[in-house]
Amino acid sequence: MTTTAHSYAQSHQERFLEQLKTLIRIPSISTLPQHAADVQRAAEWLAADMEQVGFTSAEIIKMPAGRHPLVLGSWLGAGPAAATVLIYCHYDVQPARLEDGWDSDPFEPVERAGKLYARGATDSKVNVITQLKAIESLLANGGSPVNIKLLLEGEEESGSENINAFVQAHGERLRADVGVLCDGGIVAPDQPSLVYGLRGIVTMELHLTGPERDLHSGHYGGSVHNPIQALAEIIAQLHDQHGRVTVPGFYDQVVSLEQSEREALAPIDPWYEADWQRVAAAPQPWGEPGYSLHERAGIRPTLEINGIYGGYTEAGFKTVLPGKAMAKISCRLVAKQDPDQIFELVNAEIARLTPATVKSDLIRLEAGAPAVAINRQAKALQVAKAAYERHWGRPAVGEFTGGSIPIAHALHPLVTDLIFMGYTYKGGQAHGPNEHIILKNFPRGIQTAIDFLLGLA
Amino acid sequence: MTTTAHSYAQSHQERFLEQLKTLIRIPSISTLPQHAADVQRAAEWLAADMEQVGFTSAEIIKMPAGRHPLVLGSWLGAGPAAATVLIYCHYDVQPARLEDGWDSDPFEPVERAGKLYARGATDSKVNVITQLKAIESLLANGGSPVNIKLLLEGEEESGSENINAFVQAHGERLRADVGVLCDGGIVAPDQPSLVYGLRGIVTMELHLTGPERDLHSGHYGGSVHNPIQALAEIIAQLHDQHGRVTVPGFYDQVVSLEQSEREALAPIDPWYEADWQRVAAAPQPWGEPGYSLHERAGIRPTLEINGIYGGYTEAGFKTVLPGKAMAKISCRLVAKQDPDQIFELVNAEIARLTPATVKSDLIRLEAGAPAVAINRQAKALQVAKAAYERHWGRPAVGEFTGGSIPIAHALHPLVTDLIFMGYTYKGGQAHGPNEHIILKNFPRGIQTAIDFLLGLA
Repeated sequence: MTTTAHSYAQSHQERFLEQLKTLIRIPSISTLPQHAADVQRAAEWLAADMEQVGFTSAEIIKMPAGRHPLVLGSWLGAGPAAATVLIYCHYDVQPARLEDGWDSDPFEPVERAGKLYARGATDSKVNVITQLKAIESLLANGGSPVNIKLLLEGEEESGSENINAFVQAHGERLRADVGVLCDGGIVAPDQPSLVYGLRGIVTMELHLTGPERDLHSGHYGGSVHNPIQALAEIIAQLHDQHGRVTVPGFYDQVVSLEQSEREALAPIDPWYEADWQRVAAAPQPWGEPGYSLHERAGIRPTLEINGIYGGYTEAGFKTVLPGKAMAKISCRLVAKQDPDQIFELVNAEIARLTPATVKSDLIRLEAGAPAVAINRQAKALQVAKAAYERHWGRPAVGEFTGGSIPIAHALHPLVTDLIFMGYTYKGGQAHGPNEHIILKNFPRGIQTAIDFLLGLA
Repeated sequence: MTTTAHSYAQSHQERFLEQLKTLIRIPSISTLPQHAADVQRAAEWLAADMEQVGFTSAEIIKMPAGRHPLVLGSWLGAGPAAATVLIYCHYDVQPARLEDGWDSDPFEPVERAGKLYARGATDSKVNVITQLKAIESLLANGGSPVNIKLLLEGEEESGSENINAFVQAHGERLRADVGVLCDGGIVAPDQPSLVYGLRGIVTMELHLTGPERDLHSGHYGGSVHNPIQALAEIIAQLHDQHGRVTVPGFYDQVVSLEQSEREALAPIDPWYEADWQRVAAAPQPWGEPGYSLHERAGIRPTLEINGIYGGYTEAGFKTVLPGKAMAKISCRLVAKQDPDQIFELVNAEIARLTPATVKSDLIRLEAGAPAVAINRQAKALQVAKAAYERHWGRPAVGEFTGGSIPIAHALHPLVTDLIFMGYTYKGGQAHGPNEHIILKNFPRGIQTAIDFLLGLA
């Protein structure tokens, strides 16, 4: 149904694009201290626009010295009986310099061949303005049927050090029925997609010690179990020849998808495979037989060696038989694997695999989170699907995202249903030169965001 | 038989010790540029003493700018029909500072409880003076029955960059019937030992590449064969569970010792094992069953991982699935393994073990040499044995040294028979604080060196 909000968005589209450009021109680079004032200026511009469009409140929340503020806007005009939606975006950007390979000034947005080029265009200012202007369109035309909290982060690109602490300390202010994580986007300009789950992670360091000190490999080689070799031997036993993790119990808690669910997920496969061939471009795919590449990286857990070090690694050669060796290991987790339990299982297996000739010590590192499972029966997801389909003319494909997104793990407990809705696309060269958006998708996104909010009523 | 040379050495012992102390007081540290003049001064002192004791010639051979001279002394008075012996020692030393843990000034020799403490005492000025004073004792008493070439190096402690080139360019000047490598020493103050062989070495770098770039381990983990894991899987297949190298053909050229030879070698075992427990001190010994620890590190070849690197190895964690990983590998070789052939065998096996999901490239590095086998039937070795036994009162034990000594490999082709004779002991803390020699072994060494030269007649 086309409402006055839809028409308003359409008739104000030029101004909306100008406002996106205005925000882009503020180089809110959170990773460079000399741009702290720009980040602050972007926050102030956003808070002022929130007030301008009729938010009940718009607050700039200061962070510790040298860090960057959150902007939290609320519109609670739908009343206490109505549902509340919490929308998250970030307004800070990565650094960019013309000489990095840009065809034009990264902070002066340029339209070329249906695209808008600028740092922050796709990551993630288009998402910020899309949400803000969808809300404006509703508030200027009788209001929204649901209460809205719009949370904008200013340091997503520089470690998100403070938002998790804020979320934990002020959870009540953020609590909502529906959470929308609005960062990133869809798989292709004309193919909407919806995230069905995020893998979790548990991280660790494996230390092996053998001889008490680094030895001369001539004098002792052959009589001492080299810790690098012992480490390799342990690592080699953590997967079978098919790439399946051999740690006993590792898959016990995995909630496997029904065959029908897997079939519903199949449309993503060609998109994932094309991306794999373009980005990963390994000699051959690898991994658990019986699963598509998307499934291997999305719905299956992993045990990955993220780093290894031992002995002499500089140029030339040193005849050392090192006293120790180290590997960084992580497990990507799927629902409902428990990070604590997975660590204990890996720990027990490594202890079992460690021969008497060396000693091993598996240390758990801080980084970790359980998987985030999106409730695919939730009304919010159905509404999002319908909104995308209406404006993109085709059904959204579902995808499981293999990486963890810290803010998703933090917000997950504060909302009844969490979904991911982004309005840019994966090919937009986020973080790289010539970052861009597809111009026609900007108004499409605003219409979709309006429909989503209306649909939650 | 006690000769006038023996008596001369005995009656001049105090002066010999004073001369050792004089040489020690020259801080001929070859690793520190500011001591270049001291190294030069030591060379001049040595050449002057050679002339003083009656050498036919004593030449200081300059090396490239910033490097340190050789001193080559010759006495050819035994005539063309007599045998010629080439003796190698080095006169440069490692750095030392009182604050490194010395109980007294490292360059002011101090006698305490039957030991003489000073930098360079054991490594290797006692060997230099022992040889020089044994020769003096002979030349002062009718001459030596064999011609003598005494080659003293000034940069053994700083890489021996130039001596190999000199040896190759001027081989004819050094050619001899017997070569004596006089560095290091015996296994214990009262237990002489003789080296029966040195292992050789071939060195290489194994590079594995998987995806074209470092990937996010969340987005691709499970669908890409991690190069660190693939490297570990390859390395783990290079030894069997007993520590035997599994590379086909690896042991084909190994000349195994006869049972009787192994029995004759057994007396070294307790000395090696005590050293192993003190220095290596790994949780447990490791290696090929059926061989003693000394045999595993001396008469058996190895395949060692000397370094490994891949992914993120700093503090904390990075969710990287790296594009590549690398290992440094060396094989210690025994007679008559050919370095070229061993490299080809390892190369072929690694190619065979490399799965289609990654690519491997094994690069041969420069460092390499075949094993040095000492002819245990040679007269030189029998003479050395008898000389040690006469002055130490017990038979020398035989040992195989697992490490390669570049100068031994360089001199080996220039002499008919090479032996190793040192007059200090392995516990003398070479390179460490409180380096020392056993005082009573200094005259014993000179008497032994005299007997050795007399015995070659």
